[in-house]
Amino acid sequence: MTLDLDADFLKPRPANHRPLTPLNFLFRAADAFGDRTAVIHGDVRYTWSEHAERCRRLASALKRAGIGPGDVVSVLAPNTPAMLEAHFGVPLSGAVLNTLNIRLDAAALAFIVTHCEAKALLVDRQFSALSRDVLAKLPQRPLVIDIEDAYAEGGELIGDTTYEAFLATGDPDDPVHWPGDEFDAISLNYTSGTTGNPKGALYDHRGAYLNALSQLLHHEMTNNSVYLWTLPLFHCNGWCFSWAVAAIGGTHVCLRKVVAEDIFGAVEKHNVSHCCGAPTVLNMVVEGGARLGRKLARPVAVMTAGAAPPAPVLKSSEALGFVIRHVYGLTEQHGVISICDWHREWDGLPEDERLRMMTRQGTRTITTDDMIVADPATLEPVPADGQTMGEILLRGNMSMKGYLKNPKATDEAFSNGWFHSGDLAVMHDNGYVEIKDRSKDIIISGGENISSIEIEEVLYKHPAVASAAVIAMKDEKWGEGPCAFIEVKDGVSLSDEEVLDFCRERLARFKVPRRVIFGPIERTATGKVQKFKLRALLENG
Amino acid sequence: MTLDLDADFLKPRPANHRPLTPLNFLFRAADAFGDRTAVIHGDVRYTWSEHAERCRRLASALKRAGIGPGDVVSVLAPNTPAMLEAHFGVPLSGAVLNTLNIRLDAAALAFIVTHCEAKALLVDRQFSALSRDVLAKLPQRPLVIDIEDAYAEGGELIGDTTYEAFLATGDPDDPVHWPGDEFDAISLNYTSGTTGNPKGALYDHRGAYLNALSQLLHHEMTNNSVYLWTLPLFHCNGWCFSWAVAAIGGTHVCLRKVVAEDIFGAVEKHNVSHCCGAPTVLNMVVEGGARLGRKLARPVAVMTAGAAPPAPVLKSSEALGFVIRHVYGLTEQHGVISICDWHREWDGLPEDERLRMMTRQGTRTITTDDMIVADPATLEPVPADGQTMGEILLRGNMSMKGYLKNPKATDEAFSNGWFHSGDLAVMHDNGYVEIKDRSKDIIISGGENISSIEIEEVLYKHPAVASAAVIAMKDEKWGEGPCAFIEVKDGVSLSDEEVLDFCRERLARFKVPRRVIFGPIERTATGKVQKFKLRALLENG
Repeated sequence: MTLDLDADFLKPRPANHRPLTPLNFLFRAADAFGDRTAVIHGDVRYTWSEHAERCRRLASALKRAGIGPGDVVSVLAPNTPAMLEAHFGVPLSGAVLNTLNIRLDAAALAFIVTHCEAKALLVDRQFSALSRDVLAKLPQRPLVIDIEDAYAEGGELIGDTTYEAFLATGDPDDPVHWPGDEFDAISLNYTSGTTGNPKGALYDHRGAYLNALSQLLHHEMTNNSVYLWTLPLFHCNGWCFSWAVAAIGGTHVCLRKVVAEDIFGAVEKHNVSHCCGAPTVLNMVVEGGARLGRKLARPVAVMTAGAAPPAPVLKSSEALGFVIRHVYGLTEQHGVISICDWHREWDGLPEDERLRMMTRQGTRTITTDDMIVADPATLEPVPADGQTMGEILLRGNMSMKGYLKNPKATDEAFSNGWFHSGDLAVMHDNGYVEIKDRSKDIIISGGENISSIEIEEVLYKHPAVASAAVIAMKDEKWGEGPCAFIEVKDGVSLSDEEVLDFCRERLARFKVPRRVIFGPIERTATGKVQKFKLRALLENG
Repeated sequence: MTLDLDADFLKPRPANHRPLTPLNFLFRAADAFGDRTAVIHGDVRYTWSEHAERCRRLASALKRAGIGPGDVVSVLAPNTPAMLEAHFGVPLSGAVLNTLNIRLDAAALAFIVTHCEAKALLVDRQFSALSRDVLAKLPQRPLVIDIEDAYAEGGELIGDTTYEAFLATGDPDDPVHWPGDEFDAISLNYTSGTTGNPKGALYDHRGAYLNALSQLLHHEMTNNSVYLWTLPLFHCNGWCFSWAVAAIGGTHVCLRKVVAEDIFGAVEKHNVSHCCGAPTVLNMVVEGGARLGRKLARPVAVMTAGAAPPAPVLKSSEALGFVIRHVYGLTEQHGVISICDWHREWDGLPEDERLRMMTRQGTRTITTDDMIVADPATLEPVPADGQTMGEILLRGNMSMKGYLKNPKATDEAFSNGWFHSGDLAVMHDNGYVEIKDRSKDIIISGGENISSIEIEEVLYKHPAVASAAVIAMKDEKWGEGPCAFIEVKDGVSLSDEEVLDFCRERLARFKVPRRVIFGPIERTATGKVQKFKLRALLENG
């Protein structure tokens, strides 16, 4: 006989089972850290009490404007207090938050706002001209709210009201909306759309809550942490730090423009301890440091992802004062799902080996249930030989709810019971994953897989190379071969032959680029090279 | 029109929704930290790979012995590797882990083992004589397994097999049991039973998982943390650090006996960074330090709870090298639910004020949904005046599943939709809670509430007092009045009159004890004074 552990009185009840939601973090911060600085934006300061009050005003104002559950509110803004407030205020009204990539053009933005049927659009005045173009393309005009940020430069007002006037219509004591189920949607993040139309990944309260806790643990944050917004909040809700900083009662430091001067200044003035950013941001700060003759005023822990950080960038970032935490994630996975979780013992490795270790995407985060590198059809994991490539497959609470209005793409993404990342990787013998390519970027030459990333890493080692990207080009004999795009550093020159010689010394012959093209390399707002644009360039001449 | 966010393809599926369970932490640690030391026990060492293998062997052996879902496995052991292995091995078999308080007598242990119908009993040989007495009282003998710990002193073998022989019957590659639902029971922790029979609080996978993450955040642990087991693992599963240390890939340091010499030694030898313990443990280390002329070899962060730590104990603990994190919790709440979350700014307070601040039980932890101080009938919160007493009420995922086989007590504990802690507290103006008394320990004198804790704090300030406890005694005129029990420090003397004079200078007249009784004060294994025993003493003489 066994015990009855499923008796009715042992089933969940509100007293012992509440929906997981990051919204609760705001209330805890206001209760425990009410008088402490929550948000710094130039000379603007909000305590956690004030910040919570503004978030609740926003929620109330939205509800009073008839916006709530089942509705989407879009925001087009840089990393400002209003953007942080939207992360709590919009879901506290019951609506879903959709943050827009400020580097998209009007057509792409109009596609998204139309697709999600946004009921309101909050626009920082810096983007009012762009927004006017977007509005002109919409089938129906939403409620438009101008954010008159204290540090916005220019920009007419194009909205129905201003953000501050709108907040004034709300009552911070109005009851807030709480998710009925923790799997309810909290936000909507569109993929960058490197192929076809962007897809809207729905995040749920449960996933956002769990990932926020995981991020705090892996970034080693405490209530004394000061978090600088070098990562766009519109990118996966700032990898959930939008919510996580409230959980711990830390301090946000806003940043309208991600430029080296402002970063050095903020670190010095506000004692910044943590930030995140793509390797291109690291690169930019390194170059800025060289130009300005500056270093970080104190060590700053940085989580970096979005592209594999080249070893030279890691090295010079460390020299500048960054403590690197290399992570990996996807829009469809609440932001971050693996980390090169550092073993103290590796500090003793020879420099090259240590940096090579750091370029691995690593192991699943604490809240990532399952991550394998496997054949996507058979689910057979690759051997941990550091050689055999497979696709990164993910399963568990970090996966999105699904793509808005897109059952087909959702079912495909989750086919075989796993989320398909589209990233090709190897598994090392220490259980750490290393991405070799996007599945669509792999170069297949004479039946051999060539990782474009491997070639890019070699190119980055050349002292004259500022940026490099490799794509497949047609090859009559071998099917495909590598073509290299290179941005040369200011004031130096570099020839095709020098590049090819450099590669021949460091790569197997079949991996040496067939062609070298010099010029600027376009990237997405999150630092990812837009290889489809390079492919178009190659095809068109 | 609103969006359809509840469409079928947006509902949970295994690819995006997995049960929260701390069991996953073990697999992550084995994958990411396989070669690192997981467990140190004297000269015994296990890596995370080895530890995981032993846990899986235990799960497999239990299953092969016919033990699984719906069954309970009890363990009577100090903080040894086997005890840690049971925390994963037992639930990985599908059974529920019941750890037993090693300081209970045979009758109390027999009550528990009978009540939970344990199918197996794992016994450290130190407790074999006690266990024989327990077994003699059971209606049915379970499978008895002797743990031959490397450092156990004496004790015959009384079981059907030994732990190592039992492990050998398991196969680490056997499939493990995964909870079908995250609200399934993982462990069973009996209350200390200061009134009536102990009740068995069932913990669920969800609550254990969430509390483990919360504990790591609040104790500021990383993969370099070394955790010393000064807190009994049988107490609320070691406040969930049993599982949390695996989540982060840290290192456990076992400790059979919580004595000062071994603690100083372990800190020095293993570079211990974190531990937990009741204030009595702090006190014991402080006294040991004075006796041995030792300090901690490095700063050690300690979470302390179980009774309000008196300010003098906090002060001398800090002088010894402890960094104090004062928390509060209950058996029915997965261990810890509030923390005196420290504000850096308070470091600048005058010493007395700073320590007084530290004695507050503080604010809810990150994973505690709701904590109020309120009238338990009307749920009306008390004003945040630091004066008005109310009961601490809790709601959310930290609450237990319920009491095993006890629907009545479960429904009572959760009446009005909140868990009733039985602790009376005030709310301070900074939102921090301070416990004034157990509801049953409050002294009502002439209609006025007198907090026994307030009087105890005054008594602790007397240099001759080693330990103090105050209970209600009958008073013909006022109904009740305080009675003080005092343990005097070795080698000093103290009279009734000295105590009363000391109190008169520091307390309102009606709070001054009516009577002082000198002698030893009995405590539970977790450092709580057993006031019911003091009451019996008072009544019987």
